[in-house]
Amino acid sequence: MGQAPCRYDPRVDLIERLRGIVGNSHCLTDATLRAGYETDWTRRFNGEALAVVRPGSADEVGAVLRACAEARVGVVPQGGNTGLVGGSVPRGGEVVLSTLRLASIEDFDAAAGEVTVGAGATLASVQAAAESAGWAVGVDLGARDSASIGGMVATNAGGANVLRHGPMRQQLLGFEAVRADGSVLLRLPGMPKDNTGYDLAGLLAGSEGTLAVLTRVRLRLVPRLAQRAVAVVGFADATTAVGAATQLRRELGSVLALELFTDDGLVLVMRHARVAPPFAERRPVYLLVEVGSDVADPTDDLVVALDALGTDAAAAAVATDPGGRHRLWQLRERHTEAVNAEGVPHKLDVSVPLARYAELIERAPGVVAAVDPAARTFSYGHVGDGNVHVNVLGPAPDDEAVDDAVLGLVLELGGSVSAEHGIGVAKVAWLVRDRGETTVAAMRAIKDAWDPAGILNPGVLFAPHS
Amino acid sequence: MGQAPCRYDPRVDLIERLRGIVGNSHCLTDATLRAGYETDWTRRFNGEALAVVRPGSADEVGAVLRACAEARVGVVPQGGNTGLVGGSVPRGGEVVLSTLRLASIEDFDAAAGEVTVGAGATLASVQAAAESAGWAVGVDLGARDSASIGGMVATNAGGANVLRHGPMRQQLLGFEAVRADGSVLLRLPGMPKDNTGYDLAGLLAGSEGTLAVLTRVRLRLVPRLAQRAVAVVGFADATTAVGAATQLRRELGSVLALELFTDDGLVLVMRHARVAPPFAERRPVYLLVEVGSDVADPTDDLVVALDALGTDAAAAAVATDPGGRHRLWQLRERHTEAVNAEGVPHKLDVSVPLARYAELIERAPGVVAAVDPAARTFSYGHVGDGNVHVNVLGPAPDDEAVDDAVLGLVLELGGSVSAEHGIGVAKVAWLVRDRGETTVAAMRAIKDAWDPAGILNPGVLFAPHS
Repeated sequence: MGQAPCRYDPRVDLIERLRGIVGNSHCLTDATLRAGYETDWTRRFNGEALAVVRPGSADEVGAVLRACAEARVGVVPQGGNTGLVGGSVPRGGEVVLSTLRLASIEDFDAAAGEVTVGAGATLASVQAAAESAGWAVGVDLGARDSASIGGMVATNAGGANVLRHGPMRQQLLGFEAVRADGSVLLRLPGMPKDNTGYDLAGLLAGSEGTLAVLTRVRLRLVPRLAQRAVAVVGFADATTAVGAATQLRRELGSVLALELFTDDGLVLVMRHARVAPPFAERRPVYLLVEVGSDVADPTDDLVVALDALGTDAAAAAVATDPGGRHRLWQLRERHTEAVNAEGVPHKLDVSVPLARYAELIERAPGVVAAVDPAARTFSYGHVGDGNVHVNVLGPAPDDEAVDDAVLGLVLELGGSVSAEHGIGVAKVAWLVRDRGETTVAAMRAIKDAWDPAGILNPGVLFAPHS
Repeated sequence: MGQAPCRYDPRVDLIERLRGIVGNSHCLTDATLRAGYETDWTRRFNGEALAVVRPGSADEVGAVLRACAEARVGVVPQGGNTGLVGGSVPRGGEVVLSTLRLASIEDFDAAAGEVTVGAGATLASVQAAAESAGWAVGVDLGARDSASIGGMVATNAGGANVLRHGPMRQQLLGFEAVRADGSVLLRLPGMPKDNTGYDLAGLLAGSEGTLAVLTRVRLRLVPRLAQRAVAVVGFADATTAVGAATQLRRELGSVLALELFTDDGLVLVMRHARVAPPFAERRPVYLLVEVGSDVADPTDDLVVALDALGTDAAAAAVATDPGGRHRLWQLRERHTEAVNAEGVPHKLDVSVPLARYAELIERAPGVVAAVDPAARTFSYGHVGDGNVHVNVLGPAPDDEAVDDAVLGLVLELGGSVSAEHGIGVAKVAWLVRDRGETTVAAMRAIKDAWDPAGILNPGVLFAPHS
C-alpha cells in the first residue's frame, strides 16, 4: 500500500484515545448528545465541547486527564450542572468530564454516621441512604435531585443549614481526587481529626474544578432532628430584625436556620405562589427562625426567646407540625420562583459581616435606583450567615450597571461578592476587585503549581495568563 | 582614612537590618536572651538561633521576612512555644520570629460573637475578653495561658471540644498573614460564608508556619453554656465503650466532649493526683461524657441516654455542680501528669476512623509488648473524634521502636499519625509513610510555589530538597 497523506489532527487523535479509555458509549461527540452538557440551567452560560466523556472510575478519570494534558485540551469537570456562575459548562473546545457515572454509595457506617460516595451521586440519593439509618446530610439545597456531591464539594455549597452544620467543606472526612497529571490523591475513609500537613480536602472544596477532579468523598452525617419548630416574626426595619436574629443565634443553641425577607418580597410570593401571609399584620421586614432538637421539644425555648425579644404577638407565627412548618418555610423558599415570575432578575449572591447586614438590606434599593430608577430590588437570604441574595428586576440581562452598583456596595461594607455560588467564569473580574491582586496571585500560584498547563477548568476563577 | 579590610558577613549585615526594622530591644542576639526561644517545653527539641526578632506589626513582619529572604536565612515563626513536635524552635542558624508582641484584641463584636486578635495573643487573654461578654472561644486546651492564637491556628489546635465546635480551622472568619516575599494576605473582618476562590485561611490553618506568618485572625466565638453535666461510666471493654460513645454522640445533640480512659490509667491518676475514683466499682474502660445547653438543663437528657445504653448504675457517676464536674474531669485531664510522674513517656497522638477505635485501644499494648515486653502502655483520648493519645513508658527516649510499632498499627487501621499535634520536625518521615509520596508531593508543590527559597520554617513538614 502507498503511504497515506499525513493529515494528523491531534484533536481527532484525542477523541480516539478518549474512546479507548471510557468506551465508545461514554464518549459523546454527537451534537445532540452533547447538548445537555453544554448549557447550564440558567441558559446564561454555554459553549461547544470537543467531546463529553463519562468515566466510570478514578483510573479512567486519570487516563482522560493525561490524554487531554498531552493534547493540551482543557477539561471542564461537570457534576449535576446546577451551578449558577458558568463553572461547569464549556467555554468552547474543551472536553467535558462528567462525573455522573461515579455514583457509588459505599462503606456506610451507620453507627458513626459516615458514608463514602462517588462524586456523581446526587444529594437526594445520599440523603435517602442516610435517612434510612436515621442520619441526614449536613447540607441541603433545592437542587438536591440533580446536584452532585462532587460538584457540591467543588463549589463548597451552602444552603439554609450552614448556620448549624457548615457548608460542604465541613462535611468532608476524606476524599479521592485526580490531579491534572493523572496522579491520584487519596485519603479514605479519613477522620475528623487529622493534622498531617496541608488540608487538601478543604482546599479542593470551593476550588471549582481548577485543581483536581474529585472522584469520591467521605461525608460526616448529622443526626436527623425529630422535633422542630418554625417561627416567622415581623419587624419595623432591618436593623431591628438583624438585632433579633443575632440575639436568637446567641441564646438558642437549637437554631437551625435564620432567614430574612422583606414585605416587598412577601407581596410577590403571595401573588405568584398563592401562599397565605404568616399573620394578618404586615411589617416591613420578616425573620424566619427554625429550631430543632433530637431529644426535648425545642418549641418552649423558641417561644421564651421570642418573648425575650419583646416580639409583638400580632406579628408572630409559630408552627410545630410538619404542615405548618412547611407553610411558613414557603414564604421564604418561594421567593426565587416569585421573583422569576416577574421577569429575569439580576441575582447577586453576596455576604457581609453581620454588623453591616442591615445596612446592606437598607441601602441596596437606593444604590440600584441611582443607576436605574425603574429597577425593583428584592433582598432575602440567610441572615444567620451574613448571606443576602439581592435580586434586581428591570435592567436588561446584559446590563451590568446594577450588578456593579450592588457589588460595589458590598465591597464598601467589607463583604464578599460570592457567598455561596462561587466565582465560575461569571465573576472572574470581581474576584480580583474583592480579594485584591496579592491574594489572587497567591491563589494562582497554587493553581499553576498543580496544573502548570492550565488543563483543568480554564477560565474559571482566573483570567487566562496574558 | 584608609580602606577597611573587606570582611563582609551577610549574617552580621542581616542582624543590623533586623535591628533597624524591629529596634535594638526587639532583636535578641545575646545567648541568655535567646535561650527561652530556642528550646521547646518538652526539652526534646532545641537549636541555636541567629537572632530572635519580635516585630510589632505586620509591616515589620514583612520587612523581617524580606530581609531574611535576601540573606537566604530561614525564619522560624514562634508563638507561645507550646508545640510538641519541634515546629517552633530553631534547628540551627535561623531567625526566630516571635509573634508575642502582636497581642492586640480589637474590633470585638459582642452582638455577633466575633473578635479580631493578634497572632501573639494568648488563648487565655482572648477567653477572658470573650467571657466578659458571655461568649467563649470554641477551642480550649491546657496550655491556654501560654499558647498563642496564631500558633494555635498554624497548628490547627484541637482539644476536648472539637466534637462540638471543631478545631481552630473552623473558628476562622478572617485573617492577615505575611508571605515569604513580604506580601500581605488580608481578609478582615471576613465572614462565615465566602466562596471567593481557594480557602487560604483554611490552608494556613495547620500549615505549621511553612506558608506564611499569621499576624491577625478573626475568630467566631461560641455561646457560653450556662448548664452542663458530666458523667463517667465504666464498661467491660473498649468495644462496648466506643459503641456507647457512638450512640451518645448520635442521640445527644448537647454532647460537648466524649473522652475515654482505661483502668490502668485511672490507677496512675489516683496514685499521683490523689483523685478519688468516680465510684466504688472498677471497670476496664471508662467513658467521660459532658453535655451542655444554653437554655434547658441537659442533665435529664443525659440520664435518659445513659439509661438507654443499659448502663450499670453501680459504675456510673453524674455531676452537675461545678465542683463535681471538675472532679470527674480530673480523672481524664490528669492522665498526662500522672503518666509523666512514672517516667518519660513516648507520646503518640493519633487518630483512627471510629470503627477502628476500639481495635486500636485493644491492640496497642500488644504491639508495644512485641517490641519491648517491659513497656507499659496507657491509652486515653477524645473518642468522639477518633483521637487517641497512646503513652508508652519504659523505652529510652531515643528508642523509636515502640513509636514505629504503634504508628505502624495506626496506619494499618487507616488512621492518621498526627491527630492534633501536627508534624513539625518530629514526624517528617511519618508524614510520607502516612499520606504517601503523591500527596506529600502535592503539598510540597504548594510550599515551593509560595516559598521557593524555602525561607519559612525549613525542615518542618518536609525533608530538605535533595
